[in-house]
Amino acid sequence: MADTKTNLSIATLAAHAGETVTLKGWLYNKRDSGKIRFLVLRDGSGYLQCIVVKKEVDEALWETTGHVTQESTIEVTGEVRLHPKQPGVVELGVTGFRILDLCADWPITPKEHGVDFLMSQRHLWLRSSKQASTLRIRSEVESAIHDFYYTRGYVRVDSPILTPTACEGTSNLFETQYTEDEKAYLSQSGQLYAEPAAAALGKVYCFGPTFRAEKSKTRRHLREFWMVEPEVAFLEIDGLMDLAEEFIKELAGRVLDRRKDDLARLERDPTKLEATISKPFPRIAYRDAIEILKAKGFPVQFGDDLGGDEETALTEGYDTPVMVTKYPAAIKAFYMQPDPNDPEVVSCLDVLAPEGYGEIIGGSQRIHDHDLLLKRIHEHNLPVEPLQWYLDIRKYGTFPHSGFGMGLERFTAWMCGVPHLRECIPYPRMLYRIYP
Amino acid sequence: MADTKTNLSIATLAAHAGETVTLKGWLYNKRDSGKIRFLVLRDGSGYLQCIVVKKEVDEALWETTGHVTQESTIEVTGEVRLHPKQPGVVELGVTGFRILDLCADWPITPKEHGVDFLMSQRHLWLRSSKQASTLRIRSEVESAIHDFYYTRGYVRVDSPILTPTACEGTSNLFETQYTEDEKAYLSQSGQLYAEPAAAALGKVYCFGPTFRAEKSKTRRHLREFWMVEPEVAFLEIDGLMDLAEEFIKELAGRVLDRRKDDLARLERDPTKLEATISKPFPRIAYRDAIEILKAKGFPVQFGDDLGGDEETALTEGYDTPVMVTKYPAAIKAFYMQPDPNDPEVVSCLDVLAPEGYGEIIGGSQRIHDHDLLLKRIHEHNLPVEPLQWYLDIRKYGTFPHSGFGMGLERFTAWMCGVPHLRECIPYPRMLYRIYP
Repeated sequence: MADTKTNLSIATLAAHAGETVTLKGWLYNKRDSGKIRFLVLRDGSGYLQCIVVKKEVDEALWETTGHVTQESTIEVTGEVRLHPKQPGVVELGVTGFRILDLCADWPITPKEHGVDFLMSQRHLWLRSSKQASTLRIRSEVESAIHDFYYTRGYVRVDSPILTPTACEGTSNLFETQYTEDEKAYLSQSGQLYAEPAAAALGKVYCFGPTFRAEKSKTRRHLREFWMVEPEVAFLEIDGLMDLAEEFIKELAGRVLDRRKDDLARLERDPTKLEATISKPFPRIAYRDAIEILKAKGFPVQFGDDLGGDEETALTEGYDTPVMVTKYPAAIKAFYMQPDPNDPEVVSCLDVLAPEGYGEIIGGSQRIHDHDLLLKRIHEHNLPVEPLQWYLDIRKYGTFPHSGFGMGLERFTAWMCGVPHLRECIPYPRMLYRIYP
Repeated sequence: MADTKTNLSIATLAAHAGETVTLKGWLYNKRDSGKIRFLVLRDGSGYLQCIVVKKEVDEALWETTGHVTQESTIEVTGEVRLHPKQPGVVELGVTGFRILDLCADWPITPKEHGVDFLMSQRHLWLRSSKQASTLRIRSEVESAIHDFYYTRGYVRVDSPILTPTACEGTSNLFETQYTEDEKAYLSQSGQLYAEPAAAALGKVYCFGPTFRAEKSKTRRHLREFWMVEPEVAFLEIDGLMDLAEEFIKELAGRVLDRRKDDLARLERDPTKLEATISKPFPRIAYRDAIEILKAKGFPVQFGDDLGGDEETALTEGYDTPVMVTKYPAAIKAFYMQPDPNDPEVVSCLDVLAPEGYGEIIGGSQRIHDHDLLLKRIHEHNLPVEPLQWYLDIRKYGTFPHSGFGMGLERFTAWMCGVPHLRECIPYPRMLYRIYP
């Protein structure tokens, strides 16, 4: 049995300098310079310049490389050589070449395509360099998420997607018939299910798709998106803020450290992300945020929710994320713990990314007092019976606990410097967009 | 900002032997032995024996520890001591004790509960030792999955859950109204979406929930379960079999290596899993499997699908998984590549776990010839238009490729020696079971 780890790929080819190798992939680009031809092979792991010198190859090879087209499947043989000027980069001196499948009429050409066209060709558009780099960075972030929690002893607890109740109204929920008599709704968050698991396993997190049947059609909304949600027993709001900051720092550091080439392909200036790793994040209470916004000319007052423009204004002048805490209880979810010194506000946390990328994290300490939670359920006009199991967690050995949710696509968009979330997920689901 | 890595937990307490520490958690068990009282604290990471010696503590502490009940939230202070007989195990010499929340009427008592009762109390049942161990092993497997693919240069590509078409009939699909005019269906597999991504990124995998609205009510079916699906460009069936074997070996090795305590709590004999790591898996062609089954008295013939009893019979005498290949094309999916030497069968792969745990992996090489795939779509009476994007992958630079799907709950059940899948997912979704 061959060890699949040793398979050759462009990303690890530098270790094979001086060897003759054969690689398979697709033709990404081609350019002729008199009697030298430059072919760029892509195999998904990277891009390799393959140099064909007319006088060094037979006529058939020169002809074949002459008529090969973009996105044709090819097999290239040659010697791995260190690039004369770029350290760590290799190129291939071609000695053999085969077309495995000649590609005709590749639809994604250098001309400007409309977004609708590109989205309808998403299954092919993925092969474009910026799209592939965005997805590689997304995958790196996912890997960093798992490593972050694994090394800290968290247990991953997958929350269910099919949930029985629509506690907070059905208007933004996808509904399905679960059995003949029973409906189910697609989950908007795993938090309620993570809380009982925190009582069982101490530190847990869930990571999975979440759903919002929103009618809005903005660059910051997807109907299906992925969220990571840690939930920690005996953690209170200050510890939660530390956790969120440490988490973002580690994720950003990982992208900067391991996905340099992809950032470069995306023309993303990595220095824009460096302060996030090295500097502490400002922590601003909502009451102070209101004063800051008033001073900037926003007509806001205590009790108003903060929109995208206000969020951007609050991050102005900072090159790290900004943490906003202690929002009014009235505009936040029913389960948030009141602030012990200021009961009009709750022990919550929003993290706003710099450069206008908006909210990437929302979280809070949760109410752990049974009777207070029940009171809030009534105040929010929520039905008690479907939340009985959630109340139970406060009935049997209750405990202070906190957690947050981070949207993967929003975080990825910020890392990549991509304004629209639709490029930060392989197959975006938006209003009027469910194909392919 | 405190580094959250250094938080004390029972799992890492051995490093603190000799120190006085304070821990929070829940009372798991209590036993009196005259003037010594043994309390078992659980904090989700492990279990800690806390010893209270009457003559060494004040009267109030002795009284409080006397009336504390199971699942009460407690805070215990004491000196960490190495267990006199069990290496690596620590216990606590209690000097301080506080009840944070006294638990009354904990519903899950040592008496025999019916499954329906336990399932309706799933949010609390998670705290039981075997349930928590099963979920820790599930989480370890998930972590091993990501590490396996990350170290081999795979890119994780999340496939969509909301899909536009019901290619193979709607009877087992959950349906939802996507927009006023359009329905969507919950995905049964990410494979079709992973294939275009393999053309973009070479080696990819998806990992997420999948859905089957099955009416069956067996121990081997869940309506919502998690699946990992690698898809690899230029990989053919022999390489796929190697990949599946290497994958299973690494996952099983990780569980054996890092989750010994949890296997012990589950009373799972780890030697049952050792052959999987050390021995090659038998590879049996379907035609030979039919002969083996006939010899064992099964009334089967070429063209029959193999059920659970047949699968178990095929694994008899083996202590590793068994790989069955080359099933008849007629009983397999439309996209499977025909065997080059025997066109009645396809280049597919089922992996059957030993000990009767059944199929854990199904996969195949995919048809990469456009016209053959189109022919198969017609033969299976599938609509062409919704599969046009899938056909496109064969139109533009087609390439041989292969992949498989592994069900996380089935793999976890085998590792844990748990017969029913419902205990291998935090919140199982079955027919008539969607609460909590």
